[in-house]
Order: sequence, then structure tokens, then C-alpha cells
Amino acid sequence: MGTDIISDLAKKTDTKILYLIMDGLGDIPADGHDTPLAEAHTPNMDRLAREGTLGLCDPIAPGITPGSGPAHLSLFGYDPVENNVGRGLLSAFGLDFDLEPGDLAMRGNFCTIDDDGNVADRRAGRISDEENKKACKLILDNIEMPDNIKLFLKTESEHRVLVVLRGDGLAEEVEETDPQAAGVPPNPPRALTSEAKKSERVLTSMLDQIKKILKDNHPANFVLLRGYSNPLELPTFKDRYKLDALAIAEYPMYRGLAKLVGMKTLPAYKDFEDGISQLKKFWDDYDFFFFHVKKTDSYGEDGNFENKKKMIEEVDKGIVPAVIKLNPDVLVITCDHSTPWSLKAHSWHPVPVLFKSRHDRPDECKVFTEAECLKGSMGRHPSTDIMPLALAHAGKLEKFGA
Amino acid sequence: MGTDIISDLAKKTDTKILYLIMDGLGDIPADGHDTPLAEAHTPNMDRLAREGTLGLCDPIAPGITPGSGPAHLSLFGYDPVENNVGRGLLSAFGLDFDLEPGDLAMRGNFCTIDDDGNVADRRAGRISDEENKKACKLILDNIEMPDNIKLFLKTESEHRVLVVLRGDGLAEEVEETDPQAAGVPPNPPRALTSEAKKSERVLTSMLDQIKKILKDNHPANFVLLRGYSNPLELPTFKDRYKLDALAIAEYPMYRGLAKLVGMKTLPAYKDFEDGISQLKKFWDDYDFFFFHVKKTDSYGEDGNFENKKKMIEEVDKGIVPAVIKLNPDVLVITCDHSTPWSLKAHSWHPVPVLFKSRHDRPDECKVFTEAECLKGSMGRHPSTDIMPLALAHAGKLEKFGA
Repeated sequence: MGTDIISDLAKKTDTKILYLIMDGLGDIPADGHDTPLAEAHTPNMDRLAREGTLGLCDPIAPGITPGSGPAHLSLFGYDPVENNVGRGLLSAFGLDFDLEPGDLAMRGNFCTIDDDGNVADRRAGRISDEENKKACKLILDNIEMPDNIKLFLKTESEHRVLVVLRGDGLAEEVEETDPQAAGVPPNPPRALTSEAKKSERVLTSMLDQIKKILKDNHPANFVLLRGYSNPLELPTFKDRYKLDALAIAEYPMYRGLAKLVGMKTLPAYKDFEDGISQLKKFWDDYDFFFFHVKKTDSYGEDGNFENKKKMIEEVDKGIVPAVIKLNPDVLVITCDHSTPWSLKAHSWHPVPVLFKSRHDRPDECKVFTEAECLKGSMGRHPSTDIMPLALAHAGKLEKFGA
Repeated sequence: MGTDIISDLAKKTDTKILYLIMDGLGDIPADGHDTPLAEAHTPNMDRLAREGTLGLCDPIAPGITPGSGPAHLSLFGYDPVENNVGRGLLSAFGLDFDLEPGDLAMRGNFCTIDDDGNVADRRAGRISDEENKKACKLILDNIEMPDNIKLFLKTESEHRVLVVLRGDGLAEEVEETDPQAAGVPPNPPRALTSEAKKSERVLTSMLDQIKKILKDNHPANFVLLRGYSNPLELPTFKDRYKLDALAIAEYPMYRGLAKLVGMKTLPAYKDFEDGISQLKKFWDDYDFFFFHVKKTDSYGEDGNFENKKKMIEEVDKGIVPAVIKLNPDVLVITCDHSTPWSLKAHSWHPVPVLFKSRHDRPDECKVFTEAECLKGSMGRHPSTDIMPLALAHAGKLEKFGA
């Protein structure tokens, strides 16, 4: 709750909100280590922790491990369950592919099928990007799409390929053809609703042709589809919050997520210095800033404690002081989800949140750590509450009722 | 949540619940001061804090600043968003005006319009109450309302006037005529739904006539309307909780809010001693008591730290011991919303709650302050949870399920 009435109450002011998102920051102690955030030397964030307030947020709900899409929508204040960002959309975002309304985007895996039509290898031996591109070209050169549908294929990496269909009436409610196992045939792209009958027909024709076109293209002789998604039509930050928002991110997927809610995006920053100079350059033109740091998550996924810790220290040294100097009215430092290095994966653990504004109710927190966040005066909330709280502390919400 | 099943579970017992509401009590530190509640000398409430439990509640949702109406409905256990109390109702409550079902109540501002029909002053130079009364009389003596509608005008203060239409089919979904700015004409009272077509017609006729009647009545030569509201039809405390409830309040608006949920109300108390003697007199006749203190909020709105602090001390000395002596089975001391003196306005900060009964699970809290409430065993809840918790601790709720 809390988000339904927000758009009615939001008002334009000249205050500024900055989100510094360290992807996958949250962690748990393991192997004799405290968390990377707890062990990192972070004097700047610790000072902010003393001056501001801390809290813990659940990205989706207790126990739920989120993907990057839902976790970011939640940070942006959108219900992540109601507005589930499909894998197809994330693939498109990751390639900076410009989706149009009504497109049907999906994630394809080139695979190997045997003579009986069963899946022999779901990843076609992890073919090279070159082989992937070759297979895409072969398909595009030979396929004849029905119903004036336009087909786009974009190589992601290895066996992974973005598949986009453009045309009218292509609903996303179709059974995934990837059977998630070898030794069985791919599933047919069966419509799960009557609205998706056209998608079924188009996908069936497309897959039949691809099977013929790739027949002799070993090992990538077929493609498995999943994560069908039409672009979400979300109210923008401008419509919903009356915010002019700017995203500063290294990775295209996060720029794509930012675009989804109407943020202006800039080209990938090269290093923190470059990101900060982007931020300074556009400081006067926007009133909401989303600064995304990816590598805290990457090192978590790699299971690399030392590098995750070092990356946090680099953010504390290379980004935080510059951000403090810009003096945003509300500064939020948090993450989309936890990525414990000992799990080498996203997790369900609530995320640490640091909140700094002029109207904080103080607590006794002395440093920015997961353990200290438990004592913070912000309390524990769903991550969707961060946005209303940020707007409130920035004086951007009218009173509710008389 | 928590309130949907309450009415099924509520049972009549002879235990008593007392709400002591210090309006706008919650605050934040500022200007070298801790909060007024933290700095006030409150030995009686501090003793209750040691014996009972503390907690924090969000009146509406994190980040939302509530008006008095929604904030009180939430304290009373009613969903404040679903049952939004309009400004018109609050104005009627404030004047002790007895609304009937189907009435259309609204807040009027006498204003000045210029020769071009634009608003020159939204408050007509803040005319005196006398001038306000004179304008009301002029209108009532000369207007001919269509469709057998009866018009009531009641002076609030300065330019503020309560406008009530009585008749059939007057729906509230009408555009506010107050443009909230000078230099532009008032908005027409346009129906926002087809049900409100009759309201539009009646209001249009009324405003056309008022414009003519007040033509030479400078500076109050017109009226701007907002906060159209039909009376809410809420289940009473008796129906919902099986409680016979009594409200003791200085200000009419709070008696009006209490009446809305079926509480019996008494005339304004003159001072705390008088309020306490009302409470004692009716102690045996009711099982729920709502004792409302207004001035903690007023001093917060004034930005007066010292007086807010002193008022809290007066409540601790003048009300709390007498209340303890009456020995209610459940005593709740809290507020409707925070009114930080440094903001001179209501705010979104969660409210401190003190809970004392025979069945509390203790915590380590030593004093009643916002900071200590963060550590209380009650935890953090929406304010709508206070009522179910009070009922439970008073033994007034059956078990849910077998």
C-alpha cells in the first residue's frame, strides 16, 4: 500500500532526490567473514548513517528472491508482482533494443535437437557469439513471416538470442517452448488464452521454418523460446510523481528499466569519475537521479568476497563524497536485492537502506551495515515504500484528506 | 489489514478501553532540541511506558501526511483511504452542524472577483466574522433554490463558510470551483460523473444567483467551493465492535468525527479537570472512551516548541493520573498524526504509541519518547491495527477459526 494515492498527492517542487543503487549490495556473514558491507571501510556512508536513518526493505515480499527487473520496479515504487517484467523485455533492455508498444519480445536459446526431435542440448554446446550471429543471419535471410509480422533476432552471447516479433495482436500468453530438460521434445507454442491465438499461429509458422532452415546447421539446429513479453505500459515518473528523472548506469539493462518508467538515460559511464561528471552536468535539469553501480552484484554472483568489499569501498570513496557535495534534498543509498557472495546468487534477504534528508527522525545507528539497519528508525518496509518516503522527505507530497 | 474480520470476532464484555489522543503529538528533533515529548517531564507516562509496551504506527501509509479526518478514522480502525472524510464533512463537524444522509456539504470561501470575472482575492481580504454573517444572510434572504433544495450557510471564521445542500440525489463528484489561484476565473461546478448532473445544475443555479446577490457587497462578492462531500455511512462502534463509545473533546470537529462512527458525544470540556469529571461521571455507562486533547497539535502548527512541551507535561499531570486511577483494562496513549513544530504542519512521521493492559508482552522501554517507541514490543503497524490490538488486550475478540 501507500502507492495507490501517491500520484494524486505528488506535486512539483525544486527539491532533488538521488538514489545511489549498489546492485546486489545486501549480504550475509559466511566463512568467518561478516558481510562485505560490514567489513568494508566506508567512512563516508558511516557518517551519513549517523546523520540520517537506516532501515531494511523487502524487494518483493519476505522470502521472495527477485530478479533485477521486479527488484528495480519495486525501488521505483511500482508494484513488482502486478507489473512483472518478463525475461524478453530484460533481454531487449540488455541489448539497448528499442521496443515498440505491442511488440512480442522473448528470450531464445539456440539448442541441438536429435533425429527424434528431442532436445539433445538446451544450449547447443554453448556456441560462440559468431556461430550465434551466423544462425541468426541464416534464419533472417530465409524466413517468410506470416501476417506482415516483422522478425528481429539479436545475438546476446553464446547460445542466447533476443527474438522480437512486431505486428498487431501478438499477445504474450503463450506456453514456453523450452521444456527445461533434455531428452524430450520442445513444447509447442500453445496459446494459453484466446487472445494469444494469433501469437500461437505466428510462432508455430516461425518455428516450423526455423527447424527447416537450421536443419544442417549443427549444433545450433533449433531454438527454444521463453519469457514472452509485451512491453509494459507503466505510468512514467513524470506522470506519476511529477518528477523529471535521469538514469546514470553502466549496463544497458538498467537503462532499459529506467526507460520503462520514463527516465531520461545517458550513455554508459566509463568509470565512477565519468558517472559523477554526467551527474554534475545534468544536476540542474532534473529532480530525480538514479545512479546505478553494477559490480557489487557481479562480484556477489562470482562468490568473490574481497572484490565485493573493495567495490563497496570504491563507491564510498569515488561516488559518495561527490554526491554529498551536490547536496540532494533526499539521498537514498540501497540496492535492488541482496546477492550474498556465499550463495553466488540473488537472495531474499531484506536490503539495507540508508536515508538522509533534513526531516529524518534520528536513530542510534553508527555505521551502514545490514545489522545496524535492523535498529534504524526507518523500520522495515516493502521496497515499494522507499519512493513515497523519498517524496515525502523531499516535500513532494500533498497532505491526504482534510 | 487486520480490521476486515474484526466485526465477526468482536464480543461484548464488561472491560473498558480508553484512548487518550494528544493531537499532533509526534515530532522530530530540530534546532538543538530533542522532540517535545522527549524533553517534556512526564513521570506518569514514563511509568506506564515501563509497565506497558510501546510501538510506532503509520496513520495512512509510509510517507503519507494525513489530514485530521483520515488520521482519526485510522485510529478508530476504519480504512482511511476507502473512507476518505471530505473537507465539507469536517467543516460541518467543526460547527456541530447535524448532517442528514444525502446532504451535500462543502467548504466555501468568500472571495473577491474583479470586473472581468477573475478571482482577485481568494479570501476576500479575510473579512471579519461579522461581514461573513452579513453575506450569508444576504444570500439566504434572496436566493431561490431550484428543485426544492434547502440551502444552509454557516459562518466558520473570517472568509470561511460551511455550505450544505439538502435534497434528493445530490452526488459529491463535482469539480471544485476554487481555482486555487488568483487572476483566473472560478471553475464551473462541472459534474465528474453522470450521477452528479443534478448537483451541477443546482450548484450552477446557486452560484449564478449568489454572483448577482453579492454584486455590490465588496470585498466578499462571490464564493468559491471545494471539498464537496456526502456524509459517509460507516458502521458504528456498536455494530462493528459491540462497543458503547463516548467521546470527550474540546473541539467540535473531533466530536463530529466521533459521531461519524456512532460515539456518544458530550459538550466541549472547559479544562482538563472538567474533561476528567465528564469521564468519571460516565465511566460506568460506556466501555470505550475517546479523550481528545487538541492543543499539542495547535502548538506544533504554531512552531512553538516550549508550549507543545508544556502542554504534554500538563496532560501528564492533569489527565494521566486520573485516567490511571479509573483503571481501564486497556489504555492507549497516542496521536492521530505527527505535527513537528519545526515543520509547523502535519507530517508523515510515524506516531508514538503507548499501550498498557494486563496482557502486554513487555519490552525494555523506559520512557515514552519517539526514539524509545522504536524499540517497543508492539512494533510498527498501520494505525488501523491499534483498534484490533486494543480489543484483543481487552478480551473483546473471539478466536479466529477452530
